Amino acid sequence: MKLSDLGEHGLLARIRDRVPPSPPDVLVGIGDDAAVVTTARNEQTVMTTDALVEGIHFDRRWSTPADVGHKALAVNLSDLAAMGATPRWVLLSLVLPDSWPLADVEALLDGFVAAAERERVSLAGGNVTRTPGPLVVNVTAVGGVRPRRVLLRSTGRPGDAVYLSGTIGAAAAGLEMLRAGALDENDADAMDCVARHRRPEARVRLGRALAQARAARATMDASDGLADALRQIAAASGCGVVVDAAALPIAPGARAWWTARGTDPIAAAIAGGDDYELVFTVPRTGNGRLRNVRRQVADPPITRIATLTKDRALLVERAGATSELSGGYEHFRIG
Amino acid sequence: MKLSDLGEHGLLARIRDRVPPSPPDVLVGIGDDAAVVTTARNEQTVMTTDALVEGIHFDRRWSTPADVGHKALAVNLSDLAAMGATPRWVLLSLVLPDSWPLADVEALLDGFVAAAERERVSLAGGNVTRTPGPLVVNVTAVGGVRPRRVLLRSTGRPGDAVYLSGTIGAAAAGLEMLRAGALDENDADAMDCVARHRRPEARVRLGRALAQARAARATMDASDGLADALRQIAAASGCGVVVDAAALPIAPGARAWWTARGTDPIAAAIAGGDDYELVFTVPRTGNGRLRNVRRQVADPPITRIATLTKDRALLVERAGATSELSGGYEHFRIG
Repeated sequence: MKLSDLGEHGLLARIRDRVPPSPPDVLVGIGDDAAVVTTARNEQTVMTTDALVEGIHFDRRWSTPADVGHKALAVNLSDLAAMGATPRWVLLSLVLPDSWPLADVEALLDGFVAAAERERVSLAGGNVTRTPGPLVVNVTAVGGVRPRRVLLRSTGRPGDAVYLSGTIGAAAAGLEMLRAGALDENDADAMDCVARHRRPEARVRLGRALAQARAARATMDASDGLADALRQIAAASGCGVVVDAAALPIAPGARAWWTARGTDPIAAAIAGGDDYELVFTVPRTGNGRLRNVRRQVADPPITRIATLTKDRALLVERAGATSELSGGYEHFRIG
Repeated sequence: MKLSDLGEHGLLARIRDRVPPSPPDVLVGIGDDAAVVTTARNEQTVMTTDALVEGIHFDRRWSTPADVGHKALAVNLSDLAAMGATPRWVLLSLVLPDSWPLADVEALLDGFVAAAERERVSLAGGNVTRTPGPLVVNVTAVGGVRPRRVLLRSTGRPGDAVYLSGTIGAAAAGLEMLRAGALDENDADAMDCVARHRRPEARVRLGRALAQARAARATMDASDGLADALRQIAAASGCGVVVDAAALPIAPGARAWWTARGTDPIAAAIAGGDDYELVFTVPRTGNGRLRNVRRQVADPPITRIATLTKDRALLVERAGATSELSGGYEHFRIG
């Protein structure tokens, strides 16, 4: 069935049918002019909004509608994770081309709702409208954080160790593999890269644990690439940074892909992007707290990759040589 | 300057420069992964999201970028007004074609920020991304309402009087005038219609007053047309409705426009759409409370236009004859 035959009210009814019942903190869910929720006592409210655009952030040849739904949620939850917040509610704004079949809209919604249920986030409201252009999925995610626990970008200090969760490079390499049409389904490392492009996971548990344990100082997600995250943290904190290239946890599939193509895996992984990992700084006195976090959240692993410096330069140290940190400043690039 | 020459970080810096300083309830504003705000004690949080799409909700031939910024805020605040909430913070997600000149993006932002300042709403965060398609402006508005004061659609009862704020038909007629290229700048009534299409005003003060005084029962905004609002309130409340056609406050410019073209002004105004007026029901015992609201909020005027009925039919009474309420069920129409 085409959307234009269904009508907005018909579509909204279909959407409502696919959304699980609201938890008690949602007083008014989908179906009124706005959603009404109760925020927890003694929590500040954290909110973010982000859009996925067809042809910019995903390509329907390589991502299913359910992948798109999953990713639209994940990129927003990643922003909450980077603040140390617990995600609670989301609003979903779908800007739909008339040509999208209803079944695809339903699949997108199912992917979104399944990811939301895993993360215990409630779809509290949203909007649908049509467009003469490409699909846009705009999500607003709202969460809570206890006072004085929020993780900012600006709180790094010279001497802080810089950590990275998980691995980098996977999503960027995965997208290259899809574009090249060179996918070996028996290569688990390569398939992991593709999965990381299609269905990233936000580091919600890690962000919350870092905030609650007060283990991290400056924190940001690496959605626009590791170089961008380091640059932003350093700039906001008034520091420089020295990256230890040998320490970078590059995803095995990405390393193999780039190495086979004569591309420097370290440079490619640093520029990267679309890795929803957390970059955070830990003061010299913070190792005990960090150990507690590691005990609570074993997955993803975290790796020390850099040090903040008083000197404002942004540097990469590699085999004894030092070069400037490049990448992360693309022109009006994907968000 | 073109956006593609500026880069995302450059654009974000330009945006930040145009946004006034945050009030104290914004703990973290634009520039981190997410915004952090403190909600007032003893308030529930009300949130809504809505998108304007170029070619669907506005046409650049007839609306300036500043008009689009203004309207993107207004349509969201109207949803909060319909819940009786006080708007506090907004998130702005801009999905920008590369071809948009920077000056137009800045003008859009200025229109948005000017409207936000008038309504005392703070732009706490947002996102920019590019698109190969038309401009999309997605806004999320967040506000507060005291417990047991929220205005729903579902709380109407048979016998309730139905009121409408302001006038209807202006925005729909104004759009027709623009499309026809038949604009008389000396005709104040016609120019009012055009202004109502370009720069609608949300009925924030009225919605809040109705909620605080507990004067309204079921409430909704008429953004998708009066017929749609009446249909939704009646369905959610399990009632029918009888509209008194003679009582409808049709905007003078709209009435003149349609009459001159042989269109029935009543039918056109009921189907209408894009009127950000409030439709609300008042119980028989509620006249004293309504008088208090009228004393507090003299503008817009409110007019009794209908009565909720036990019988579920949706009817229009006109010159002694009764017909079915039509309109408000367009196919996947503008949101």
